[in-house]
Amino acid sequence: MRVVVTGASGFLGRRLVKTLRQRRTWGGAPIRRLVLADRVVQPGSGLATDPIVDIVHGDLTDRLGELFAEPVDVLFHLAAAVSAQCEADFDLGMRSNVDTTRALLDAARTQSAAGGPLSRVVFASSLAVYGSDPALSLPPLVSETTCALPQSSYGVQKLICEHLVTEYTRRGFVDGRVARLMTVAVRPGKPNAAASGFLSSIIREPLAGSPATCPVRPGLRVALASPRRTVHGLLRIAEAGRGTGPGQLDGRLPVNLPALTVSVAEMLATLRQVAGDAAADLVTIEPDAAVEALVGSWPAVFDNRRAAALGLEPDPSFLSIVQDHLAGHAESA
Amino acid sequence: MRVVVTGASGFLGRRLVKTLRQRRTWGGAPIRRLVLADRVVQPGSGLATDPIVDIVHGDLTDRLGELFAEPVDVLFHLAAAVSAQCEADFDLGMRSNVDTTRALLDAARTQSAAGGPLSRVVFASSLAVYGSDPALSLPPLVSETTCALPQSSYGVQKLICEHLVTEYTRRGFVDGRVARLMTVAVRPGKPNAAASGFLSSIIREPLAGSPATCPVRPGLRVALASPRRTVHGLLRIAEAGRGTGPGQLDGRLPVNLPALTVSVAEMLATLRQVAGDAAADLVTIEPDAAVEALVGSWPAVFDNRRAAALGLEPDPSFLSIVQDHLAGHAESA
Repeated sequence: MRVVVTGASGFLGRRLVKTLRQRRTWGGAPIRRLVLADRVVQPGSGLATDPIVDIVHGDLTDRLGELFAEPVDVLFHLAAAVSAQCEADFDLGMRSNVDTTRALLDAARTQSAAGGPLSRVVFASSLAVYGSDPALSLPPLVSETTCALPQSSYGVQKLICEHLVTEYTRRGFVDGRVARLMTVAVRPGKPNAAASGFLSSIIREPLAGSPATCPVRPGLRVALASPRRTVHGLLRIAEAGRGTGPGQLDGRLPVNLPALTVSVAEMLATLRQVAGDAAADLVTIEPDAAVEALVGSWPAVFDNRRAAALGLEPDPSFLSIVQDHLAGHAESA
Repeated sequence: MRVVVTGASGFLGRRLVKTLRQRRTWGGAPIRRLVLADRVVQPGSGLATDPIVDIVHGDLTDRLGELFAEPVDVLFHLAAAVSAQCEADFDLGMRSNVDTTRALLDAARTQSAAGGPLSRVVFASSLAVYGSDPALSLPPLVSETTCALPQSSYGVQKLICEHLVTEYTRRGFVDGRVARLMTVAVRPGKPNAAASGFLSSIIREPLAGSPATCPVRPGLRVALASPRRTVHGLLRIAEAGRGTGPGQLDGRLPVNLPALTVSVAEMLATLRQVAGDAAADLVTIEPDAAVEALVGSWPAVFDNRRAAALGLEPDPSFLSIVQDHLAGHAESA
């Protein structure tokens, strides 16, 4: 098996790669090559000396030849321009998200048309595909059959890619699967340009003794998943058979990864409980209208049945998410 | 006002152009230029001598410079590769439908970014955006808030364009409106490559004394609208103000044009009623699995409230649709 991961240097990419390197098999077959693609891949963590790892640097659309130089059995497409970037630079988002995904799908299609394997393409989409409108109220429980009307360029670009993946699958060009990610928290590392980044930094920074700003009112509710459960969900969706039995992928609809619904106030209360007043008091609430509008347009409460049918469950509590973060931090320290 | 119509030689385009040439105004202002764009525009019907008419021949993406050489106030984008074409040639559909629409939207965006007028862009979409899936049953009444999961390349391409129009509108690049057309019948002229073409030919051909083949079982129900009501709907959506009052366009959701639901058997019974047994017996039922799958994937029963709020009503009966067709035929004879 040759497995390609785009966005391999992103924090989900790194976790996914770590899991794949530990397992070293896919569907019972050995992973012969594990190809990590990103603009820059840091050769840390033993990557450079792992005999199955290949690294492909640079802009994805310039590197398709390398990625598909040998047959791609599995493609995890995680690379994307993030929400605030896409809002700031529309063309960047269209290129990085829509055009790149289409080019990858076309490369996979060319491979299968030439008699090569049908690539299994796992596309990381987002809850940002949903939004309300004067003519569309989101239902109390959002599911995969809820009409998606994004309120951000990022959400539209992800939704367009979803439809491409689904259609390339219907036509038999690829075996595509769409996983809609919830807001992933607590993200390690530095803040990025995702509008939802604060949902990690208001926990991560105070735990490390640093101040953090919360740009939304604490009453806002959000749909979260830990990095661990998110990667687990991606793998489960990737490996599921197609059919209607238990653990199988039924139809071509996307799968919303399971969400834990919490308010920002509950998140901050958990921080206080875990790390005490001194840490919790490092957070300053400073509502920012643009961030509130963007993050507030995403639904917070999901019907998780489609994920549950694949054996996926949400994180049990925000406390467990924080404990996961602390354990991960200790592990990598 | 400068009004551009793409697909101006198509049968809806010709009807729309005829109406605009008769009115000669838009929102109270004179139509200064009426630009007809299509691969080939026949200079019949007094077009060549109408002083407001400009004709732009050729591939749209090669002609953007001409179309936007002067400011475009209103753009009706009707040009498209049709359903069976898109199913037969995926790349053709992506180019003709998705890439061309994106190029038009970008040209309109460049115009407004340069201080020119915000183009009002009316995009003709289709009921083909809807479809069912093992994980998605279409509800008994389909509305604009029903989740769209197309089962054809044409439907996916239309849906992607819808999302582009909607997003370019949200960002203030254009003032876009999406009208989802029902199956338009009875189409005049020759059969085209639309999978739904038989829904016109099984009426039009026998009325003209010619045989016709019906490739679906007569129990199949379909959602129809006459050419006259379809053009009327496009114009109403194009001219509506934005707001929540009566006759106004509320939010950015598409508008499904109102549909008359009939079975093919009812259509054939009406033919028999209007034209007698000799005409009706010219129709041969020969189910074709591919056509049945494509046309049968489209919903047949619609909740028409969003259209009704704009003052749009479905055709009252299939008999009235046939009478419309006969009247139009007499008029152009």
